[in-house]
Amino acid sequence: MQGDLLNVLILGGDGFCGWPTALHLSQAGHDVTIVDNLSRRHIDVELEVESLTPIRPIHERLVAWKELTGKEIGFVHLDIAKEYDRFVDLLLESRPDALVHFAEQRAAPYSMRDSAAKRYTVDNNVSGTHNVLCAIVESDLDIAVVHLGTMGVYGYGWSGSAPIPEGYLTVHVPTPDGAIEREILHPANPGSVYHMTKTLDQLLFAFYAKNDGIRITDLHQGIVWGTETPETAIDERLINRFDYDGDYGTVLNRFIMQAAIGHPLTVHGTGGQTRAFIHIRDTVRCIEIALNNPPARGDQVSVFNQVTETYQVSDLADLISRITGAEVAYLPNPRKEAAANDLNVTRDRFLGLGLDPTTLSEGLLEETREIGAKYASRADFSKIVAKTVWKAGMEIAPDLMG
Amino acid sequence: MQGDLLNVLILGGDGFCGWPTALHLSQAGHDVTIVDNLSRRHIDVELEVESLTPIRPIHERLVAWKELTGKEIGFVHLDIAKEYDRFVDLLLESRPDALVHFAEQRAAPYSMRDSAAKRYTVDNNVSGTHNVLCAIVESDLDIAVVHLGTMGVYGYGWSGSAPIPEGYLTVHVPTPDGAIEREILHPANPGSVYHMTKTLDQLLFAFYAKNDGIRITDLHQGIVWGTETPETAIDERLINRFDYDGDYGTVLNRFIMQAAIGHPLTVHGTGGQTRAFIHIRDTVRCIEIALNNPPARGDQVSVFNQVTETYQVSDLADLISRITGAEVAYLPNPRKEAAANDLNVTRDRFLGLGLDPTTLSEGLLEETREIGAKYASRADFSKIVAKTVWKAGMEIAPDLMG
Repeated sequence: MQGDLLNVLILGGDGFCGWPTALHLSQAGHDVTIVDNLSRRHIDVELEVESLTPIRPIHERLVAWKELTGKEIGFVHLDIAKEYDRFVDLLLESRPDALVHFAEQRAAPYSMRDSAAKRYTVDNNVSGTHNVLCAIVESDLDIAVVHLGTMGVYGYGWSGSAPIPEGYLTVHVPTPDGAIEREILHPANPGSVYHMTKTLDQLLFAFYAKNDGIRITDLHQGIVWGTETPETAIDERLINRFDYDGDYGTVLNRFIMQAAIGHPLTVHGTGGQTRAFIHIRDTVRCIEIALNNPPARGDQVSVFNQVTETYQVSDLADLISRITGAEVAYLPNPRKEAAANDLNVTRDRFLGLGLDPTTLSEGLLEETREIGAKYASRADFSKIVAKTVWKAGMEIAPDLMG
Repeated sequence: MQGDLLNVLILGGDGFCGWPTALHLSQAGHDVTIVDNLSRRHIDVELEVESLTPIRPIHERLVAWKELTGKEIGFVHLDIAKEYDRFVDLLLESRPDALVHFAEQRAAPYSMRDSAAKRYTVDNNVSGTHNVLCAIVESDLDIAVVHLGTMGVYGYGWSGSAPIPEGYLTVHVPTPDGAIEREILHPANPGSVYHMTKTLDQLLFAFYAKNDGIRITDLHQGIVWGTETPETAIDERLINRFDYDGDYGTVLNRFIMQAAIGHPLTVHGTGGQTRAFIHIRDTVRCIEIALNNPPARGDQVSVFNQVTETYQVSDLADLISRITGAEVAYLPNPRKEAAANDLNVTRDRFLGLGLDPTTLSEGLLEETREIGAKYASRADFSKIVAKTVWKAGMEIAPDLMG
């Protein structure tokens, strides 16, 4: 599982997954440079909301990291979707072994907010990913790519009782001479414009792996929960972001925070949807495992399902309600999705490479206490209920607390 | 087959397929407006090459059309990939029943030329298509979309002896309880950045059809040959473009022109590739059939294979060599593709709706005489051999005539 020490660029290294990944890799001895346009902070400004946790400016974070550990993380303020030539120059100057690509707009509700957000999500994510691939080809360097995909590329419930494979599905295609067997990229069934962009990424990756031999790993991650990793917890100046608002907050972290501040747990829809989860601590470990186990040049894209557990949303709400005494509020569902689905996900690859997952039972109470309760006073109650609907005319849920 | 008279926007209506489509629909009585940023003419300037045929400026074309037929075609100079707000305003003002979307960079070799051309192809095609869909949703009008796709989305030779279906493939997915049957979008296997963008378009269409109920028809067209339609042939001021250069020229038209000017027929590679073809006269008829037979709101994307015949490239070269006496020159293949493939394409849908196809045997000699020979003096010999390679380091073919 432990590989060489690498020179790594973290695209989107100031974000929720990117920041703890940068620290984890730096702590492990890799030479880390963050490349970020700070778009996530700009979107906070646009949405008039802040991380529940008091995240510090990127330079304060990096100065603290150096002061505390003696390790240096570089920072380049750059928009990969818009500053292609500068990005090529950066590759040629820094000659990284690998890059981790988190630099995409990553919230499904935000991606459905309005035309501007839909267009930003598509233009930013597709141009950004394509620029990364194109720049690697132009640099003529052998730079491995690790990309954060999503379980949402598969859709939910498509394959009946068949477990969702890791990227590729074996099918039988009827022919006049009898069926032939083929391995195909799992059919795409995205549930939002955001998820759709990750299905586009997959086709970009497949082409550049085939035509140019770029070594690419695509990690189809479940819903991340938790906040801190061993590195971000060293000092409050290193704290990771925690989103609780209706657009960027993810379901489990929202429940944790709602319980902590005495807000009803907001289940939008029936809660019958089963989703896959992973703790942020495991995200950063998975990234390092993926970096240490890249595909060979000429291989097809290597796909991992980056998930550790699956839960039904209403079961999660009930669980947290039992632990904390919080009420559960059932609100209109702003998404177009099935009212219920099973989810059976193959996740053998990371387990086979040594991942020892954090389970919900281990981390939940700690998270509620350490983050939800500690920073409860920073919450803006008017931002909690999800208001973005998937199509004009769908019912918008009311605020539950003024 | 004949439907109502429609109010139609032709996006990319100044191009090789768009222009004759605009005239054909106008002649048939539809209310036609061309929307184009003239990008194809700008790329001619960039590549220092011109259409073999002397195409006229767009306004001269439209004035001539009105003078000759009494029919008016509107023109809006607009970049759908970059001028989103103007495009929304145009939809709201003109309230079209349908739009035909040709407004994409459509040459595979150009899309592989260099980083700038790769990036332009992805950014222009993906943002343009997404803007179209987003603008229709924002307009809240029920505007049907007919889009020009490509047979290249399927790849070649993937499915063995199974014929390529029209968009959707039935497969059996093994499960623990026995196989389940699923209809999937045919797996994508694009051979260039250009073809890749059409596979991205498919996923955009699938999402917007599912989420927003947009009525979309995607036409997977073969390689177009020929130049004139009954309408473009009325007057030389209406003549259609004919590309013969290594980036934009398509194989059969290149052979026709090469034979006419005494240049060897340039087969890049073995010539063992089988490809699907369609005459430009049939392209415009297919578009009208598709406009008259849109899917219903809520239907999945309607896919037609817009092809009439299949030929092996070397057979085409031999055929034209026999007719005209031209030599055949075998040159290095700049593409990454199989040396040979079979091709068995389902094309029942257009035939079922009344298309009576133009076959190669009917149109070939006429085309050689009327276009190739007539405009031979306009050819620039230094632009004929294809020079764009799919990956740096691949062999570049030499010019054959100075």
